[in-house]
Amino acid sequence: MSNSEVVELPVLQDGDAAPCCPPITAGELSPADAEKMAAMFKALSDPVRLRLFSKIASHPGGEACVCDIADVGVSQPTVSHHLRKLREAGLLTSERRGTWVYYQVAPSVVAAMAALLDLRG
Amino acid sequence: MSNSEVVELPVLQDGDAAPCCPPITAGELSPADAEKMAAMFKALSDPVRLRLFSKIASHPGGEACVCDIADVGVSQPTVSHHLRKLREAGLLTSERRGTWVYYQVAPSVVAAMAALLDLRG
Repeated sequence: MSNSEVVELPVLQDGDAAPCCPPITAGELSPADAEKMAAMFKALSDPVRLRLFSKIASHPGGEACVCDIADVGVSQPTVSHHLRKLREAGLLTSERRGTWVYYQVAPSVVAAMAALLDLRG
Repeated sequence: MSNSEVVELPVLQDGDAAPCCPPITAGELSPADAEKMAAMFKALSDPVRLRLFSKIASHPGGEACVCDIADVGVSQPTVSHHLRKLREAGLLTSERRGTWVYYQVAPSVVAAMAALLDLRG
């Protein structure tokens, strides 16, 4: 039963950036995991970016195109910049369909962030 | 049984910054809530700060003094700077007892961040 000591990590789907981590109360983060998770938190550390993210997450069907969410009081290039940052951090995925690019929340990554902050663990 | 429909919000203690918010899937964040939550995520957007936070959260008894957690490879003033940032963002509370300042995770604030990222909502 040597496998019983292997820590199970969340299973990744569709090529998301690798989420980690056990709840923050369960033990110290390794330097490598801290780098990875800090980058995810950084992606949500801008108010406009957080509003764009919440617009996508709460949009009917769980996805939105730029045309649905651009009314956050900043220019279109700025919106595109923020969406790119969220995608690079692994929090959003995107898909071009016809004229528009549609953005979806990457559930496994966001769930990993929520799990890390779960103090009940 | 009218109470059964009341949504319970986290109870604040000892003057913590007010947590918000419903799950990010439930609706758009207001600009004011986005400002508040972005500041909390920003506090966790540095790898060293995240490691210090995880050391405190996982320390026996749920609290730690600087003497317990300073081995993160940066200078003592840098550790103090990061702990101050975490406290200012409302994620840590602190208490001086004798020679040492003890830091605790502010559970209601961290729970609010986890709740925001709960995609099941």
